[in-house]
Amino acid sequence: MRRQNAGALFVALAVCLAPACARRSGAPDAAARYRDVVDRLRAAGLAGERAHRFLERICSVGPRLTGSAEADAAVALSLELMSGAGLENVHSEPVEVGRWVRGRAAEAAVAPTAARPALPLAVAALGGSVGTPDGGLTAPVVEVRSLDEAAALGPKAAGRIVFYNRPMDRRLTEPFAAYGGAADQRVAGASAAARSGAVAVLVRSLTFREDRHPHTGMLRYEPGAPEIPAAAVAAADADRLGALLREEPEARVTLILDGRNEGRVVSANAVGEIAGSERPDEIVLLGGHLDSWDLSVGAHDDAAGCAAALEALALLRDLGLRPKRTVRAVFFMDEEFGGTGGRAYAASPLRQGERHIVAAESDRGGFVPVGLAVGRPGSAALERMTALRDLLRPFGVAAVGPGGGGVDVAPLVAKGAEPAAVLPNAQPYFDVHHSALDTVAAVHPRELELQAIVLAVLAYVLAQEGVGAP
Amino acid sequence: MRRQNAGALFVALAVCLAPACARRSGAPDAAARYRDVVDRLRAAGLAGERAHRFLERICSVGPRLTGSAEADAAVALSLELMSGAGLENVHSEPVEVGRWVRGRAAEAAVAPTAARPALPLAVAALGGSVGTPDGGLTAPVVEVRSLDEAAALGPKAAGRIVFYNRPMDRRLTEPFAAYGGAADQRVAGASAAARSGAVAVLVRSLTFREDRHPHTGMLRYEPGAPEIPAAAVAAADADRLGALLREEPEARVTLILDGRNEGRVVSANAVGEIAGSERPDEIVLLGGHLDSWDLSVGAHDDAAGCAAALEALALLRDLGLRPKRTVRAVFFMDEEFGGTGGRAYAASPLRQGERHIVAAESDRGGFVPVGLAVGRPGSAALERMTALRDLLRPFGVAAVGPGGGGVDVAPLVAKGAEPAAVLPNAQPYFDVHHSALDTVAAVHPRELELQAIVLAVLAYVLAQEGVGAP
Repeated sequence: MRRQNAGALFVALAVCLAPACARRSGAPDAAARYRDVVDRLRAAGLAGERAHRFLERICSVGPRLTGSAEADAAVALSLELMSGAGLENVHSEPVEVGRWVRGRAAEAAVAPTAARPALPLAVAALGGSVGTPDGGLTAPVVEVRSLDEAAALGPKAAGRIVFYNRPMDRRLTEPFAAYGGAADQRVAGASAAARSGAVAVLVRSLTFREDRHPHTGMLRYEPGAPEIPAAAVAAADADRLGALLREEPEARVTLILDGRNEGRVVSANAVGEIAGSERPDEIVLLGGHLDSWDLSVGAHDDAAGCAAALEALALLRDLGLRPKRTVRAVFFMDEEFGGTGGRAYAASPLRQGERHIVAAESDRGGFVPVGLAVGRPGSAALERMTALRDLLRPFGVAAVGPGGGGVDVAPLVAKGAEPAAVLPNAQPYFDVHHSALDTVAAVHPRELELQAIVLAVLAYVLAQEGVGAP
Repeated sequence: MRRQNAGALFVALAVCLAPACARRSGAPDAAARYRDVVDRLRAAGLAGERAHRFLERICSVGPRLTGSAEADAAVALSLELMSGAGLENVHSEPVEVGRWVRGRAAEAAVAPTAARPALPLAVAALGGSVGTPDGGLTAPVVEVRSLDEAAALGPKAAGRIVFYNRPMDRRLTEPFAAYGGAADQRVAGASAAARSGAVAVLVRSLTFREDRHPHTGMLRYEPGAPEIPAAAVAAADADRLGALLREEPEARVTLILDGRNEGRVVSANAVGEIAGSERPDEIVLLGGHLDSWDLSVGAHDDAAGCAAALEALALLRDLGLRPKRTVRAVFFMDEEFGGTGGRAYAASPLRQGERHIVAAESDRGGFVPVGLAVGRPGSAALERMTALRDLLRPFGVAAVGPGGGGVDVAPLVAKGAEPAAVLPNAQPYFDVHHSALDTVAAVHPRELELQAIVLAVLAYVLAQEGVGAP
């Protein structure tokens, strides 16, 4: 576009929507009380775009697979970043985690026939998968679309590789819903197939894009089921394999995976805060997870969440905004293998005497905010943030509603903390999620900064006002 | 992130917001009436993601500078695409446009001194700029931050290159507002400097990113002012030049520009439609512009707008949705040099007997929708679309308000058409706008498709209901 009166158009939209909000009693007061703070956070945040620089630093460590040396290096770096930003009580807290090692890169190919050469398939071991026997394994393949189909195979699965090929339903507008509707294949597919005698599984990558990047992720071996090797296959390769199996139902695939589980090791969460001026034992927590998958540096998942939380506190600190209650950033370890970091944090003896009133988790990618989920329905936390929705709208937050939370803060929410989450645009998230595409360059500095500013507002307001009834 | 109950969180948000809408009288009826249509458009659109394929086709022509052979090829291709999609009355309409030629790529460098070598600057001629004399020009540089500062230079500008270096204000949340606050330097800077005797201007690129890509765009020579060469300088190079001038106030820059204006030529708008079943002379227009700048293929600006409009009609056609009034797609020529295509369309004798009731323009990038601007305040068009806002929210449309329109449809709006525009996320737009970065890969297929679906809903509903009082 060239030039047009863009400002007028947006102003018109904002004006039109304001009356609906102003009708809520107390809303104008609250908005007036926090307008100046929000404005200062906006100007400082957008001028500096520091969240992305924090993200670059975290990602400079490399992939941060739980239990790896890089994950431990990331903890040490995080403590440095927190101290450098002026946070207080900066420390690590131990977490016992599993250590899974991918080993050498996975290989797979449809075995050659007299009529055609071998056809390589882009694959990556699922997190937690055992390896194949020395030299790999070669077996015919049976394609299914669901766990039920796999279970129904019965003896027909014996000695075969079960190939889960149900795509995420791209007709759904909400990508997380499409992901949730397909992820059972990855999480539970190996054990379902193993119970029918399968020797391995291939799982279509969980993405809308039909490219050649495999997307890894955790699998869960069920007790009692044989532990068989499991790999994600890139979506384009899954399409190709599916088409080939219709032509050659007895085609055989060779799979070489090198994964192994190496037992338990001690890792850590990283913690820093701005201590409350009046009630330091009441805590508003902003969390992300420091571990990542190992096919990339995990920029969106979830260096972005850690960077946004740190930037939120750094902005408050820079502007001299110390609220009555404590605002704490926690970079959790081991979200990807099951949330042991979140559980260890909640169960730590250090929590004695502390009361977490809000537990926000940022783990949906570093994209532009589109909404804010906070508190239980009817809660004062929700009411207080809803009263500020006109102040939040310029940052992209078009709706404030109940909800929020996530894997890492679930134990705190179970103990009474109000959950919260900035909801970013999710349309591109699964393009990069758990794949080699989740790079620093894929995170937009302004979009991430907008998340950090919204987190800073959330944290400041609720640490100032608390979550009790007005 | 790993897995969490994402669906529940979003459902909670939606439920919370519904009552505000349901209070409007008539809203539940309207939503019920169109729920099935919206659902079919959603499923067909997202399953196919065809808007992005249309965009790829349009961009396959290459950069489509107004008056160029590529722009004419794009018109021919557009007619093919429209016919192929089953549109009716597909035709082109002539537009007389200016033809500006960039010629060889621009060059600029800070001249060497005894102490340092020459320092190259990444520049691109502004659209419409005259060239430099043979061999270029070399002159000292004076940096200013505004047109007023340039005018105040008076004789101090004589014989110099005036360097406009006021960045877009990154503290503003709304990128279009930041753009609007800085674009006067590009549009009017040359003439303002020329009146003070400057020999050329350099203008800082209009982007938030500090990279080495110059961003071009139209300049306007004022009658009576000498026409001097004008170039955009990449933001990183502008920073560097500004810093150097503080060390070396008499530093000289050599500039070689090869642009020239080659008079008037005849180009065309491309038009296709779904004729209304009852009132074919009443028209809901969906427009974008087919011309682009020449540093890239103009994927966001504005192949995206054309592709979204075409896909909206193609979806209606595929689903057999022929509304009572006509829905028309228009790919306008020459938005970038001033909107001659829009004026020619409105003034054409072909408009006799036609009444444009809605004129939507898509020219804000192919990003995920965040809002819908439609109609004048209090208009029936606005009321009707507001009643459907719960149906539109899953596509990202968090707010429906008055506004919309743009350069190309302004003449139709002036004659009474209700303006409209899908408002996309604008945060990344100026990163790519008018630069080499505006590529096909920069447009996300799902995000663009969501725009197309919202346009299809808008067009169908208003072509079915009209814009008269209920």
